[in-house]
Amino acid sequence: MSDPLAQTDRTKVRRIAERGSFDRDLVNSIIDEAYLAHVGFVIDGAPKVLPMTYGRDGDVIYLHGAVGNAMLRASTDAEVCVTITLLDGLVMARSAFHHSMNYRSVVLLGEAVKVDDEDEKRRAFDVIVDHVLPGRTETARATNPSELRSTLVLKLPIDEGSAKIRTGGAVDDEEDHGLPVWAGVIPLALVAGEPEQDALQLDVPELAGLTPPVPARPTSARR
Amino acid sequence: MSDPLAQTDRTKVRRIAERGSFDRDLVNSIIDEAYLAHVGFVIDGAPKVLPMTYGRDGDVIYLHGAVGNAMLRASTDAEVCVTITLLDGLVMARSAFHHSMNYRSVVLLGEAVKVDDEDEKRRAFDVIVDHVLPGRTETARATNPSELRSTLVLKLPIDEGSAKIRTGGAVDDEEDHGLPVWAGVIPLALVAGEPEQDALQLDVPELAGLTPPVPARPTSARR
Repeated sequence: MSDPLAQTDRTKVRRIAERGSFDRDLVNSIIDEAYLAHVGFVIDGAPKVLPMTYGRDGDVIYLHGAVGNAMLRASTDAEVCVTITLLDGLVMARSAFHHSMNYRSVVLLGEAVKVDDEDEKRRAFDVIVDHVLPGRTETARATNPSELRSTLVLKLPIDEGSAKIRTGGAVDDEEDHGLPVWAGVIPLALVAGEPEQDALQLDVPELAGLTPPVPARPTSARR
Repeated sequence: MSDPLAQTDRTKVRRIAERGSFDRDLVNSIIDEAYLAHVGFVIDGAPKVLPMTYGRDGDVIYLHGAVGNAMLRASTDAEVCVTITLLDGLVMARSAFHHSMNYRSVVLLGEAVKVDDEDEKRRAFDVIVDHVLPGRTETARATNPSELRSTLVLKLPIDEGSAKIRTGGAVDDEEDHGLPVWAGVIPLALVAGEPEQDALQLDVPELAGLTPPVPARPTSARR
């Protein structure tokens, strides 16, 4: 059992608190299953949220982007909010009011710190690539020093934050239970389609025969 | 052809600008296809991002939540950022550096205004429910006055913002084209599974025979 995340006044789950959790293993499982984070930062006093890829190494999340990325620069050594959401289903209630969604989400808060150490930066790069497809860095051409230099890497400790989860069916008012309106859950899952190989490789018999990588995640996420 | 969105200094797409667009029809199509928005706001100077459902009525986005929702209260008459992202595929390059994702995203900025007018509030509610499943409000039990009173509805004009899209295959450096590493795209799509009817209805023959609603969106989104 890992240590739970820090429960602070600003990470307390306020709405329907029983859906909240500070369990680190649960938080990590959501982080590891999703592909995208929505990263919030404050620029000139106003909020801005952008979708980003990321990677997790133990108790740290790495983000990256071009050195000129205005958002990453504004986030360097500044407070950020990294929110990761998996949508698991549409909850159809008998009443319009009780419609809902099943989801698993994580909200992480803290200061995003720039990674300057070259070894850690290289490792962060690997972690981000392997997050998409475990083991991918063993086959892909490794990141070179000039690519590393052109990239800004930020890290955020997985420390202050929480998970929130909704599962299960519709929760209608008792007096609505007999209404002739279909109620239940329509499950949703992110599913991978057939890999589409690069046209340049298709022209070369030995490259056209390469085995496409199979992402285990989207199909295993089906529930 | 609709009017484009306002192009301001803070909505200019900076990184890889050719992927950006202010086309209103494109922006609306992304808003209409997704189920979740990630809404950013500033609380005590720090950013916070939460996943929320929403609905679109013409050039307006509606958000809602419980009257006690701290986030919605902090967002009332304050600057928010509503970001909506569809993940379409994993782009596998020959080099670790050029791995990417195909996506369609919208970022909307502006002041979220509380809706006080009861008719507009009711209409916003319908728009949010029908966003999940078009026509659902025609069958579900309508929202009653007490449910309306317990709900805070905010609206944001779709005015200042932009879309950003990546499509297509891996873009590797020319000297890497011959590397024996599979390159291409693994398409991803949110797919609906078999509807799971509410257990209480399954016990009543005439209710167990209700036709489940079919969400057109997830399967049609498959690409």
